[in-house]
Amino acid sequence: MKQIFEIKEKETINALLDSVEYGTLAVSYNNEPYAVPVNFVRIDEAVYFHGALSNKKMKILEKNPKVSFSVVQNYSLIASFFSSTEGLACPATQFFKSVSIDGVAKMVESREVKAMVFEALMAKLQPEGGYKPFSNEAYDKAIQATAVVKIVPHTTRCKFKFGQHLTQERFERILSYLKERDTKIDQETLKMMKQLRVENGI
Amino acid sequence: MKQIFEIKEKETINALLDSVEYGTLAVSYNNEPYAVPVNFVRIDEAVYFHGALSNKKMKILEKNPKVSFSVVQNYSLIASFFSSTEGLACPATQFFKSVSIDGVAKMVESREVKAMVFEALMAKLQPEGGYKPFSNEAYDKAIQATAVVKIVPHTTRCKFKFGQHLTQERFERILSYLKERDTKIDQETLKMMKQLRVENGI
Repeated sequence: MKQIFEIKEKETINALLDSVEYGTLAVSYNNEPYAVPVNFVRIDEAVYFHGALSNKKMKILEKNPKVSFSVVQNYSLIASFFSSTEGLACPATQFFKSVSIDGVAKMVESREVKAMVFEALMAKLQPEGGYKPFSNEAYDKAIQATAVVKIVPHTTRCKFKFGQHLTQERFERILSYLKERDTKIDQETLKMMKQLRVENGI
Repeated sequence: MKQIFEIKEKETINALLDSVEYGTLAVSYNNEPYAVPVNFVRIDEAVYFHGALSNKKMKILEKNPKVSFSVVQNYSLIASFFSSTEGLACPATQFFKSVSIDGVAKMVESREVKAMVFEALMAKLQPEGGYKPFSNEAYDKAIQATAVVKIVPHTTRCKFKFGQHLTQERFERILSYLKERDTKIDQETLKMMKQLRVENGI
């Protein structure tokens, strides 16, 4: 079941990481987990985020650099009766895309690399531009005062759940309910459902 | 700075938890963190989620019940030039609502309580109904095969960031840019900005 949902293509995984605004970082100290949302940017295989040097997450990372990072793009809520005629609640679900990265955090020290990360983060979240490049010395103090963290992944898993496992009958039942409800997210869900069905040769 | 963003009113925090579809659970084993998104429901002070008994998160929770749970509702991305005329990237940010819960996970064993949790979860995510009540014995096997977890919070923190800390001039500059861009999320952001400004007596 889980294998059906697994996405292996790097381009697809990267496209998701490049389109989602934030992920949730999990760190741990003394076996006490701590979850915190961060805006982030992907560069090559790695994920970068930043924060004040005094942040709780930075302090924990100094002691234990192991991280787990979770990114989610949610799609339609699928009501139980969308896929089943038996009147049970069990088939109720939500379609989604997700990436889960386990890895190790490394502090970025060089001004040059930090600047590159900030340029990439701004290009992602403020593509309209309108700011001086980070090579400008006006940023020197701010860059020095800000921690930039690189997550070096050892495992990256990506799941797309869009009813790939369903029989044709249940699949089409969901399609017709989504067409009827027809919200913006339903339209995007429909597109993904059809696309994955084609890619899986069903 | 952080205090300005802090929300203490339980009703406001609960309303947020009741409107967001998923949160990210962080657990830890051998000081190795693990982040995983879950649909959830709040009942009174606690948060509940479910999953297959064989799930990685359930196995970790058996060994270490400490959890951190993060819920985010993102609002507008605020471009750097929305609030500043200096041409620096630093003021770029994102407005948001977030809840962070640290607590302990307890397995729910009783069929009755499990049924109550599923009823509440369905009422949240499928308010249109259309399924048999969970007291029905048709659910017996499914309920038995599913782990239901209660997060008993020891600390709940809620933050709303909508420019509460900004000078009137920068605040109004953001308002006018959001009015101009006028996406759906910008309209919701504008509403929250004004509401919080009034509540804080500014």
